[in-house]
Parts: sequence; structure tokens; C-alpha cells
Amino acid sequence: MVVYNFAAGPAVMPKPVIQQIQTELPSLNGSGMSIMEISHRSPAFDAIIQQAEARLRHLMAIPDDYAVLFMQGGGTGQFAAAPLNLATKHHHIAVLDSGQWASRAAAEAKRLGIAADVLATTKPDHYRHLPTMPEALAQDTYDYLHLCLNNTVEGTAYTTLPEHGDTPLVADMSSNICAQRYNVSDFGMIFAGAQKNLGPAGVTVVIVKRALLSDVEAVPSALDYTLFDKKNSLYNTPPVFAIYALNLTLGWIEDLGGIDAMEKRNREKSSKLYAFLDRSKLFHNYVEPRDRSLTNVVFNTGDADLDQAVVDAAAAQGLMNLKGHRSVGGLRASLYNAMPLAGVDALIDFLTQFEKEHEYYVQR
Amino acid sequence: MVVYNFAAGPAVMPKPVIQQIQTELPSLNGSGMSIMEISHRSPAFDAIIQQAEARLRHLMAIPDDYAVLFMQGGGTGQFAAAPLNLATKHHHIAVLDSGQWASRAAAEAKRLGIAADVLATTKPDHYRHLPTMPEALAQDTYDYLHLCLNNTVEGTAYTTLPEHGDTPLVADMSSNICAQRYNVSDFGMIFAGAQKNLGPAGVTVVIVKRALLSDVEAVPSALDYTLFDKKNSLYNTPPVFAIYALNLTLGWIEDLGGIDAMEKRNREKSSKLYAFLDRSKLFHNYVEPRDRSLTNVVFNTGDADLDQAVVDAAAAQGLMNLKGHRSVGGLRASLYNAMPLAGVDALIDFLTQFEKEHEYYVQR
Repeated sequence: MVVYNFAAGPAVMPKPVIQQIQTELPSLNGSGMSIMEISHRSPAFDAIIQQAEARLRHLMAIPDDYAVLFMQGGGTGQFAAAPLNLATKHHHIAVLDSGQWASRAAAEAKRLGIAADVLATTKPDHYRHLPTMPEALAQDTYDYLHLCLNNTVEGTAYTTLPEHGDTPLVADMSSNICAQRYNVSDFGMIFAGAQKNLGPAGVTVVIVKRALLSDVEAVPSALDYTLFDKKNSLYNTPPVFAIYALNLTLGWIEDLGGIDAMEKRNREKSSKLYAFLDRSKLFHNYVEPRDRSLTNVVFNTGDADLDQAVVDAAAAQGLMNLKGHRSVGGLRASLYNAMPLAGVDALIDFLTQFEKEHEYYVQR
Repeated sequence: MVVYNFAAGPAVMPKPVIQQIQTELPSLNGSGMSIMEISHRSPAFDAIIQQAEARLRHLMAIPDDYAVLFMQGGGTGQFAAAPLNLATKHHHIAVLDSGQWASRAAAEAKRLGIAADVLATTKPDHYRHLPTMPEALAQDTYDYLHLCLNNTVEGTAYTTLPEHGDTPLVADMSSNICAQRYNVSDFGMIFAGAQKNLGPAGVTVVIVKRALLSDVEAVPSALDYTLFDKKNSLYNTPPVFAIYALNLTLGWIEDLGGIDAMEKRNREKSSKLYAFLDRSKLFHNYVEPRDRSLTNVVFNTGDADLDQAVVDAAAAQGLMNLKGHRSVGGLRASLYNAMPLAGVDALIDFLTQFEKEHEYYVQR
């Protein structure tokens, strides 16, 4: 049975990448040693981490005055690292609350003694659209404005950015990095866990404008951007295997034509699924069309038991992990870079058939 | 050519573990999904992380009132996490400076605003023996006493612990966890990066007495022991692949008879190498015999160029990564659990031959 994995992350990876990892697992470049066994200070790993950085710089067109860091601790680590490293002048950040992860970023900053103003929230509307700035952003007030560019749980994504004047933007790009085109120089800092579009869990990409960095005190070294920049992400032992897998995944994205090609594919996949949902009488997506995510399509039948029946029947046909996030329920299909169009077609076929077999529910 | 990897970490892993990972990489348990692709909230991963914890508890005889956590950020992350979580009463820790890593732990605590008293250091003696407590440890003064149990760079290890009264011990066990027997209840907290004896880099084991934990504030969530304990290490996305590989490595240790069997093997391997070094006229180990490490054997010829010639000639014969740590130079053979006795025999044969071919140096 062909299996399609719609998990929100950790998520589907490109088959050729998995195959290459498998092939060379016992012996990297004929060395007789596994990638899992080699030193992070070896020439072999140096070539890998340098290639990963070069590939990411090329793919995302990252300007030279931005550092590219590979850290540990995931998005949650960055919810702390961003305010600790960047909120050094005003000790005050602004947040647009577009969903659970933006809200968690605000909470983590506060936990660390940094004031966090939620300027707008769409929580009362169940986050079915993105918050807009209520008025012009106060200048010289905030160290940065935090945005979650793609809301994995709620199925929304920013395509145009809010006006932010001179206040830097910090962007959580965890679920759509390299899946659609953004202009890096619009941001002061971008971060993303690898486990959705870039490889396995265990490494987090940080892209930060060097002009925003300073020598910070009282920040754990493992979260210190300046230190990691100075040491090329090798201050301490990095997650070697995860960086290696990330590098191969970036190579696969290059081979397929880069981010613009990925965005085209992702737009094709998601448009097809949204078009089906908009036609369906059983399955509904309630997200404001202009705010719909390319990578995470949320939907439901309006009946929690029936949603569960969909998850189970789909899994029996190899369409895995369609359950919505535990905080919102319903259904979700994550269509990251590595999900082929064939997976979306198979999903639509399945949902069409399921709908036919459950006409009773539609007619209620 | 058979390759033996003497790297200090990331380091050699058991061949059967690498083989199993390779075999099941494209499809875990016949799921059609790679371990790299599965959700950390899936039943499949739940079984893995629970088994890893159970195995570690069994192997190390960890009492029930200790939490076992899987974190990110390595030993460096723990140099911060330990004082942030545990130095909450006195904001003051004590350190025995047995080498580079103990010294770094003290520096990191200070960086975070926690006072760190170095009670004794053997730095003037080039760390060739372990520091002993100059006098009884002042009671009700320090939140804990930090020890680096095995000094990877300097080739020393504690076998008996210093008197510490009621002050908890915090032990960096990064390079000899599961390689020799310690009594967990002698410690308040133990931590270890996986990349020496437990698997690939990217996951850090923390074993902490729950009675020492409190609800801490202003600690990054990614480093919060109480939070990780409450959430069974699944507060955020963990390094799934690294935990999976660690679990397999623990299974391999079990299969070989557990920690006592490992210690026996490691003692046999290191004794053989130390015996050779003590006989050699060219190669010398200067560590006080009672403080010698089981897992990291440092030695040198006294001539940096000749040391480099050894590294190169050994590599040509498949004996890899014998270079000493860049801070001390010389040579080092790391003999972690996964290094077979045959590797040590091959190394001794090579060194014997090298010595014969370089009699000139000996006679100088």
C-alpha cells in the first residue's frame, strides 16, 4: 500500500533523501563511519554544514549581513532566544496573535521578564483569519514585532506583511520555510524548526540580521546568537545527523527548482484541496480565503465522531495522520514540500468517496 | 579495510544498532513511514520514548523519585539548565575543577548570575590528577557541588566521590554514562549528551531527583526540568530520531549484559592500552594511575610533529581520530562502549610497530 503522511510535523520527507540516508548510513563517503559517528569538527562534517548554509542562503536569497545559525531546542527554544537576544533595548516586544504559536511566543517572553503587548488577536473568531494591526505600530517602543507566518494549527498564513515602520519583524517560519517565497530582508530574524519542510526534528534554523545582535549577558550559551554566529554554529556539539539530513533536503529542493518551484507545487496542491472543500457538502474549511495556508489545510465535518471516522477510514487506506491539532480537533492535511500532488489527489478521491457513503450526514 | 573510530564524540556506535536503523529507515514497523517522519505524539514514538526511559531506569537502577528527561542543547545546555533549575536557594554553586568541562560549567553559571566557587583545581598540574576537597564542604552554603565525572579532554575519571555532606552532587556524566557503574542516589542530578556512549548527537539525558525541583521562573521552557518532567519530555517536539537511536543503543547495552558488563569490557580495553603505554618508551600517559579514565586514554610522544605522524599513519591503517583535543594536543583513544576489544588490539599492534620504526626518537 502506498502511504501518504499528512502529519503536521515531524512530517513527510522526500523519498530520495530517505533513500540516500539509508544507503550511506553505515559509511559516509566510503569512510567506514556513519554520519552518526563522525566528529562535528571533522572535515567531512565541515563540508556538510557549510553546504547547508550555502544552500539555504542561495535558496532564500539571504543577504550577507544576515547570520545563518543551526541551533537546538526547536521553536520553543527560539521563543526564549529571540527576546533574550533581541529585546535588549526596550525589553518590550509586540505580538500579533494569529494562533496558538504566536500566543505561546508572547507567553514565553513574559516568562523571561520581557513585556509582550498583544496588539491584535483573532482568537474570538477562532483564528479563522489573521489579525490586522489596529493602528500604526508605535515607533521606538518595541524591540520587535513577532509574527507567526504560517499557523500550523489554524491553517492560516501571511502573504502580505503588516506595516511595521522601523520596528524589526521576527518571524516564526517553522511550517512554511522554503515552502513559499518571502523576502528575507523584510525581517530582522526568522526561525524555523526543521521538522516540517527541511528534514527531521532536532535542528532549528535561525536567520538573523547581524546589526540587531549585541553581546548579551545572562543568556544561556546554547541560545546565544552572537556566540553561535562567531563559532559558525559549532560552539558546542551540534545535532550532526539532523544537519546532515537538512542539507540533503535542501539539495532536493534545489534539484526541484528552488523555493519558487516549491511554492508553485504547494499552491497547486492546496488549491486543489481547497476547491474540493469549497464544493463539498460534508467537509468545510472556515478560513478566510485570502488567509489560507499553503501548507496546512484544516477542515471538519462539524461532527467530532464523524471526523474521527474519517481519520480511521483514511488511515486504513494509507492516508495517515489527518487528525487536527488536539487543541482544535477536526481534520488537517499538511501539504509540506515533500508531499506529492498524487497524495493530495488520493486524499480528494478518498474524501469524495467518504462523502458519498455518508450522504445521510449531509442531509441532516 | 576494517575501520576503528577512536573519536571522543560524536563517536563509534554499535554496528548492530546502525544496521537496524538502516534496515528500518524507510518504514518503521512496516508503517510505510520513516522514524524521521513520525509524529512525536504518535503511539509508535510513545512506545519508543517510554522504552528508552524504562531501559535507562533499569540499566542505571534509577530510583523512582528521580525524573528521567530527554532534552536538547547538549552538555552546554545543561551547564545553564542546572544552575537555572537547581541553584534557587543560595544562588551559589561549588565546583571541583578537574578540567576544561568543569571549568566551563563554572563559567556558564557565573554568566547567568549564579556565584560559582571553584573549591579546588588541578590546572597547575595540567589536570593530570583529580582535585581533592581542600577541607570539608561548607554546609547550607551551596545549592550543589558540580563534578565532571569523566574528563574527556584530560583522560581522568572519578571512581570514588568526594565527601559532600548534605549538598547535592550534580554530575556531568557525558563521557562515561552507562560505561561504568555509579550509584544514582549519590547524585542530585546527572546529565549526559548521548553522543559518546548512548547514540548520535542531538539528545541529552537528564536524571534529576524530584525533591530538588521547584517551579522556576525566568527559565527558558526548553531548559525547564519541572516542565519537562510534567510533560514526559514532550512539552515541545523532541529530537525524535536521536531518541530512537538512543533507545536502540540502550537495547544493545542490555543485550550485552548491562552496565556492569560494559564496565568490565571497558576496564579490559583500557587496562590493556594503559599497560602498553606504561611499557612503551615512545608513548606516555601522564595521568595519576588511580584517576585514569576507562573511556578516554590520553597519551603523547612529547613531540607534536611525531604525534601528528602517528595520527596520519594510524588513519592510513583505519585507526581513525586519534588526535588529542585541540586544547591539549597529543593523542587520545576514546574507548566507549561500542569500541570492541579488537579495536584496542589493533591500536596496540599499530603503536608497537610505529615505536619499532621510530627507535631513533626513543634513543634521543
